[in-house]
Amino acid sequence: MAFLNDNFLKLKAGYLFPEIGRRVKVFCDANPEAAKKLIRCGIGDVTEPLPPAVIAALHKAVDEMASRETFKGYGPEQGYEWLRAAIAKNDFRDKGIEIADDEIFVSDGSKCDCGAILDILGAKNKIAISDPVYPVYVDTNVMAGHTGEANEAGAYAKLVYLPCKPSNGFIPEPPKKHVDVIYLCSPNNPTGAAATREQLEAWVKYALENKSVILFDAAYEAYITDKPDVDVSSSTSGLKKLFQLAKEQGHLTYNEINDAFPGNISPEKLDKVFTKLREKNIEIIDATKADIGKTKLPHSIYEIPGARECAIEFRSFSKNGGFTGTRCAFTVVPKSLNAQTKSGEFKPLHPLWHRRTTTKFNGVSYIVQRAAEALYSPEGKLQVAELIKHYLGNAEVLRKGAKKAGLKVFGGVNAPYIWVRTPKGVTSWQAFDKILADANVVITPGSGFGSKGESYFRISAFNSRANAKEVARRLQELKW
Amino acid sequence: MAFLNDNFLKLKAGYLFPEIGRRVKVFCDANPEAAKKLIRCGIGDVTEPLPPAVIAALHKAVDEMASRETFKGYGPEQGYEWLRAAIAKNDFRDKGIEIADDEIFVSDGSKCDCGAILDILGAKNKIAISDPVYPVYVDTNVMAGHTGEANEAGAYAKLVYLPCKPSNGFIPEPPKKHVDVIYLCSPNNPTGAAATREQLEAWVKYALENKSVILFDAAYEAYITDKPDVDVSSSTSGLKKLFQLAKEQGHLTYNEINDAFPGNISPEKLDKVFTKLREKNIEIIDATKADIGKTKLPHSIYEIPGARECAIEFRSFSKNGGFTGTRCAFTVVPKSLNAQTKSGEFKPLHPLWHRRTTTKFNGVSYIVQRAAEALYSPEGKLQVAELIKHYLGNAEVLRKGAKKAGLKVFGGVNAPYIWVRTPKGVTSWQAFDKILADANVVITPGSGFGSKGESYFRISAFNSRANAKEVARRLQELKW
Repeated sequence: MAFLNDNFLKLKAGYLFPEIGRRVKVFCDANPEAAKKLIRCGIGDVTEPLPPAVIAALHKAVDEMASRETFKGYGPEQGYEWLRAAIAKNDFRDKGIEIADDEIFVSDGSKCDCGAILDILGAKNKIAISDPVYPVYVDTNVMAGHTGEANEAGAYAKLVYLPCKPSNGFIPEPPKKHVDVIYLCSPNNPTGAAATREQLEAWVKYALENKSVILFDAAYEAYITDKPDVDVSSSTSGLKKLFQLAKEQGHLTYNEINDAFPGNISPEKLDKVFTKLREKNIEIIDATKADIGKTKLPHSIYEIPGARECAIEFRSFSKNGGFTGTRCAFTVVPKSLNAQTKSGEFKPLHPLWHRRTTTKFNGVSYIVQRAAEALYSPEGKLQVAELIKHYLGNAEVLRKGAKKAGLKVFGGVNAPYIWVRTPKGVTSWQAFDKILADANVVITPGSGFGSKGESYFRISAFNSRANAKEVARRLQELKW
Repeated sequence: MAFLNDNFLKLKAGYLFPEIGRRVKVFCDANPEAAKKLIRCGIGDVTEPLPPAVIAALHKAVDEMASRETFKGYGPEQGYEWLRAAIAKNDFRDKGIEIADDEIFVSDGSKCDCGAILDILGAKNKIAISDPVYPVYVDTNVMAGHTGEANEAGAYAKLVYLPCKPSNGFIPEPPKKHVDVIYLCSPNNPTGAAATREQLEAWVKYALENKSVILFDAAYEAYITDKPDVDVSSSTSGLKKLFQLAKEQGHLTYNEINDAFPGNISPEKLDKVFTKLREKNIEIIDATKADIGKTKLPHSIYEIPGARECAIEFRSFSKNGGFTGTRCAFTVVPKSLNAQTKSGEFKPLHPLWHRRTTTKFNGVSYIVQRAAEALYSPEGKLQVAELIKHYLGNAEVLRKGAKKAGLKVFGGVNAPYIWVRTPKGVTSWQAFDKILADANVVITPGSGFGSKGESYFRISAFNSRANAKEVARRLQELKW
């Protein structure tokens, strides 16, 4: 008599997005005219096409698969070396963060990795999860048997919920009690809040003291717009060469700036160069190495000293490169991160994740890995920057629109999500129904992300500019 | 203090393919001249390019991703409806097997699915696994905590090993004792054996009686060459039309044959038509609907009555379409398949697998799903048939070569693997080292697939014809 996994039976039946889909269908069937005007700002899915650099890389890789000499069969399960190297260099080492190529594990999605990571962790960990948050963290822990039953509000016994609220800027503080595994998501889905350096420092301190592991989801890091204040204005040699280069190619990369100054350049000197370039409105790509330690909002948990000893980071190409339908992501597992065996020994998690990856995964499609690599080319970086600019532009339109409509608004500055307080006495689902019926706009009810999301709703900025403007307009016309 | 999953520490360090890689590297570094002649028949990876129909579909899909109007973001996690429908129709319903579209779950690999399936099964199941077999079945059960420690031969406590040996045609018989979950792989990796209808009937009977679940891995089903004996020779109306059509397009599909005979056609009549077509050497694509129940070697466990109540089937595009580096597969979970809760109730596994898929996976890349769909087009089917013919041609060359070399040979008829007995007193790894050193050929030592694989080795037929011939020649020159 084969047994099923009873933990699945604890899962609440009404998963958020299917329920949204059901209500939208009922409304559209009953109101065919309104249905024509419907604008979807519900699910966090990109709308703009893949960047041209990615399209070119895809076509090239497809052609390679058409010939025996260049055909690719099984690749390394953890990703091709050239992609792992491009990621480690561009996203980390060029920004002053110490991450080795083989600490990068390429996967087909952060959602998969967020679930799979539980495979290498023990069954007895005390798990802490922000509330509200991306429902996958909770649900995968329920499936793995790390929780008890859910109460009426949908909160599961044994989980430690970390409330996110206006008073903490929607970034939870470390709890008083001990927890073993902590899920953090910054910039946050759904609240759009980004953790400050001080907030992450407090978490790393807590994790090191408690020997906990932080699971840091940075899927939206590309939306962090916070820039350092640079206040230096005197001139520097090499600048002329850079101005000329920028004129020719329309932008500069960090390496080009570095190359213009042979020998070592001091951080102070570099700062001045950056300022001069910014004064001329020259676009600088991957220039954050110079900015590290100066921005208020870290892009990676590894910007915080000590994080290599306590954190795993999840990154995705879904929301920067528009890969939601193309599927590529990666997870960083530092070799210096340990966890405890039952007998009390500390052992590194890196070999476990490596073994898990090689045994239960067969790598990302070769052509998709080539597509991801193209995001790190100079053109790719510029095109990604354009995409982010587009969606953040929408976010600004929506944020201002919702504010003008008299609503209390959070997020939307360092994230593609606007987190809106419902008018007094209106629940999340009531707001959903009203906005659907009266404005013909689909949003996401905040309560779907956790009990602390009640009385909020999320507006996604993934849309065309015209739609964002129209949604902003309709929100202002809405009578509550 | 975060805990790791101690079960990982039970895993044997020397995983098969890394160890092969290590020995090959040592040999090549020490023998650079021999290294130039090296032929790899180790890992089961395809060598021929993707079929032209797939390349065309990939380019088309990439172009769709380049435009806002046709761009695809998140798709359904379980696969696009058009792909699930193409699979269910072509691989099952057209062959007389009752499988609904929504019983098909598209994934990025059978390896992933074989591991992931354990998520929905309980922790207390008694697990039975063929020996020798694809190592992933064992390793994922070790990780999930379903085993004890391994003994010196690498066999894990608590697992029930089902010996595969010449006396049972390398297909294990149902055990005398009760087991809950059974892994079967046919055609088998590594032995190349394909289960007969009678053997699978015995397993389905056992599973129904014991309320067990069979996990049936049919990744190599396309290699089954067994054809029914049709012994009818009288003529039938409609044939002339078919002859004409076949002349025009070079082949016929099952549907075209059906269409040529308006109204119902009896199985006897259809048989006669088939014979006539075969007499004219007309290639018939997906014609197995008429063959069902007549071939000795089933392509699917669902050809056996009762299997819908006791089996999950894994299929892959890796070895038919050459998708090892492109990544697409699928799993069939019938809605009539139940398993037991702790409290003794029987509940369907389908909703659990659906929930698992939607929560822990984000679907296969859109462009890759379009590529898989192209395998079901008329051209795609012909091109797949060509690929299979090529690899099976290699298998024949290798099989005959090894036989001529005086070795005892199994498999290689309905599978791309030749399973060879080592000469007396020679272990698997000794054979590996000798063949590497003296013939400069990489094979896979049988002991890597389980303790019952000792004194065997596997030769993969995935190669060019020239290489297959050269390996056959070198095997005959080898002095043991």
